[in-house]
Amino acid sequence: MALIVQKYGGTSVGDIDRIDAVAEKIAKFRQKGDDLVVVVSAMSGETNRLTALAHEMMERPTPREMDVLLSTGEQVTIALLSMALEKRNCQAHSFTGSQVRILTNGEHTKARIKEIDESLIRDEIKRGNVVVVAGFQGIDAKGNITTLGRGGSDTTAVALAAALKADECQIYTDVEGVYTTDPRVVKEAKLLKNITFEEMLELASLGAKVLQIRAVEFAGKYKVPLRVLSTFKEGVGTLITLEESSDMEEPAIAGIAFERDEAKLTVAGVPDIPGIAYEVIGPVSDAGIEVDVIVQNAASNDSNDISFTVKRGESDKAKQILDSVALSLKAREVVLDTNVCKVSLVGVGMRSHAGIASKMFKALADENINIELITTSEIKISVVIEEKYLELAVRSLHNVFELNDPNCENG
Amino acid sequence: MALIVQKYGGTSVGDIDRIDAVAEKIAKFRQKGDDLVVVVSAMSGETNRLTALAHEMMERPTPREMDVLLSTGEQVTIALLSMALEKRNCQAHSFTGSQVRILTNGEHTKARIKEIDESLIRDEIKRGNVVVVAGFQGIDAKGNITTLGRGGSDTTAVALAAALKADECQIYTDVEGVYTTDPRVVKEAKLLKNITFEEMLELASLGAKVLQIRAVEFAGKYKVPLRVLSTFKEGVGTLITLEESSDMEEPAIAGIAFERDEAKLTVAGVPDIPGIAYEVIGPVSDAGIEVDVIVQNAASNDSNDISFTVKRGESDKAKQILDSVALSLKAREVVLDTNVCKVSLVGVGMRSHAGIASKMFKALADENINIELITTSEIKISVVIEEKYLELAVRSLHNVFELNDPNCENG
Repeated sequence: MALIVQKYGGTSVGDIDRIDAVAEKIAKFRQKGDDLVVVVSAMSGETNRLTALAHEMMERPTPREMDVLLSTGEQVTIALLSMALEKRNCQAHSFTGSQVRILTNGEHTKARIKEIDESLIRDEIKRGNVVVVAGFQGIDAKGNITTLGRGGSDTTAVALAAALKADECQIYTDVEGVYTTDPRVVKEAKLLKNITFEEMLELASLGAKVLQIRAVEFAGKYKVPLRVLSTFKEGVGTLITLEESSDMEEPAIAGIAFERDEAKLTVAGVPDIPGIAYEVIGPVSDAGIEVDVIVQNAASNDSNDISFTVKRGESDKAKQILDSVALSLKAREVVLDTNVCKVSLVGVGMRSHAGIASKMFKALADENINIELITTSEIKISVVIEEKYLELAVRSLHNVFELNDPNCENG
Repeated sequence: MALIVQKYGGTSVGDIDRIDAVAEKIAKFRQKGDDLVVVVSAMSGETNRLTALAHEMMERPTPREMDVLLSTGEQVTIALLSMALEKRNCQAHSFTGSQVRILTNGEHTKARIKEIDESLIRDEIKRGNVVVVAGFQGIDAKGNITTLGRGGSDTTAVALAAALKADECQIYTDVEGVYTTDPRVVKEAKLLKNITFEEMLELASLGAKVLQIRAVEFAGKYKVPLRVLSTFKEGVGTLITLEESSDMEEPAIAGIAFERDEAKLTVAGVPDIPGIAYEVIGPVSDAGIEVDVIVQNAASNDSNDISFTVKRGESDKAKQILDSVALSLKAREVVLDTNVCKVSLVGVGMRSHAGIASKMFKALADENINIELITTSEIKISVVIEEKYLELAVRSLHNVFELNDPNCENG
């Protein structure tokens, strides 16, 4: 008999009918004999409704009281889900974050879990109950209610799985798992059976936002087997594990991520002196603009080009900042290109497979796609290209790296 | 510097603007230097909304989970009110029932308070905070969330005032206090400055439903001075005290209560034997019908008439039951009168003032109002009369007992 922690997000428990459907799923699971701890989010829209109330009351709501307010969202869900289970004669017992004693630090609205007392949960499991826990919330050492910030329910689930040494932590969501790339771009995209935590982190931060990054990091750190799967469709989903798949046939590449609506900024002809990258990027970051790919070309003639990408909506603001930076640095010019996107190959297999990069560049060259920037890490190669080539690039890479689903009729 | 416990009900905190107005009131109060503990209900409509969700989920919601669900209502209010206070630079600190540790028994949805740990509240008062406490809720010895049942916030306020030995417990509501009778019937009805707990209990149970009976009982037991006053209008309201007012001029009668929509049932000619009252009333009570005034006339010729009143809506059901009871008891007949009401004089002064009853009967006789039933207690005389005379009876009694407000132009 296994111990499984399941997590259902806001969309999965969005209304009474959906909570009822989730209860049906859980009750069937329970009949197979496994022990279950279920973590739930607030019903979709509820957190926004409560946040709006708070902002109607004051511009910058007191963080402590914000947490008191927001934590009611999940509390409503645990009660309703427990009722839905009891209705099916599936014994259930709900816990708020304070009741479990999910101890966090005192940073309201973005607290971090320090410790979980799993004894009460174990007691209820022993009594034959499905234990239903409010995600996203905890309690600090002084007894104040805290919340973990948006998406924190994933973290709650992983942390509980770690504390309980659960056999698996299943994150139910509205996608069937992690795909080799976005199926809306490549219809032959394949559902991955396995992926490593590292790959998942790269894919998540690159746009395949299935899971909260913090939860994945947490799962990796505590070696909790994590599975992403659909609330609405049957299927095994994607298992995220510590180890690379031992399957020899497994391709070197796990997936292809991409990011639209990027803009590239180049400050050309800056002096080649220490600290120059900071002088260029610093003021942009300080203005709250998120900087993504950063490339500094090798110096020639004692001068230097620094390029980086930002979200397109923030590019004008970034340009203004850079214009004045360029002036003070006596840079030659600032060039803004608002028509770029980023495409990344991700895979731990890159470590052992040579030639991935050149294979990628050749595939793009074969399609006459010009590469504007290249960055690489141990398990990722990203290129910045003209946005109109995004679909073409992703499809041809998906094909060249043999990621197509053989079961797909066009595959 | 006094310590005051204030309670604001659902209507007083019905929306963001009203919560804001309550905060304004509290902040002004606080500026005068008194220490404040504020108990709040859920925003009006919220408890009904949550109850409806639960019933949508299952016919008879699990009581434990019902409490988890309903307790979120007050939790939302404490957060929003605390924010509204902080916005006015009036330091505030919220507590849920579990956070205070309002210990109750384990009877979900109708728990009773056993003990209150007031130490955390005292700490926050010492820190200069207005303490905002969620009414209606507590925690049992096992850490389960409990609720006190509808209107329980009044009880929370009184219990906190008792535990903190507060100087006064103020219940803010949508009426200005307790009147000598319903101002909609007698426009010269006078706001009472003082009333005793006993009188309040009789008036509350007789229809002047300003306060929860349980809260009044609690306040009487723990000698908490209780004041009822309006959230929306300035005024001192009505102080409910243990002792009768020492004012010699104070009339013997505190007020006149009445109950519409009553029905009278008489079982005539039942045998005059021990236990007969139980045999008549028992089956009616067992059917869940609330029996009010009960009168048994002195026996004559070894037979007996037993009369009582019920709510008009339940009179047909009661009649059916009585018909079969009458058959087995060989009673002469069962008479149903569906056109009656009840009018009651209430006042602790009756104890020391003779002749109240006869003065009452004379006043009714002067108006040609026939009395159908009479019952008396130490501080109350009730008569059952034909319903069409209700207004006339109340007005003439209000006049005869000199309860009219001298400030009222018709008074």
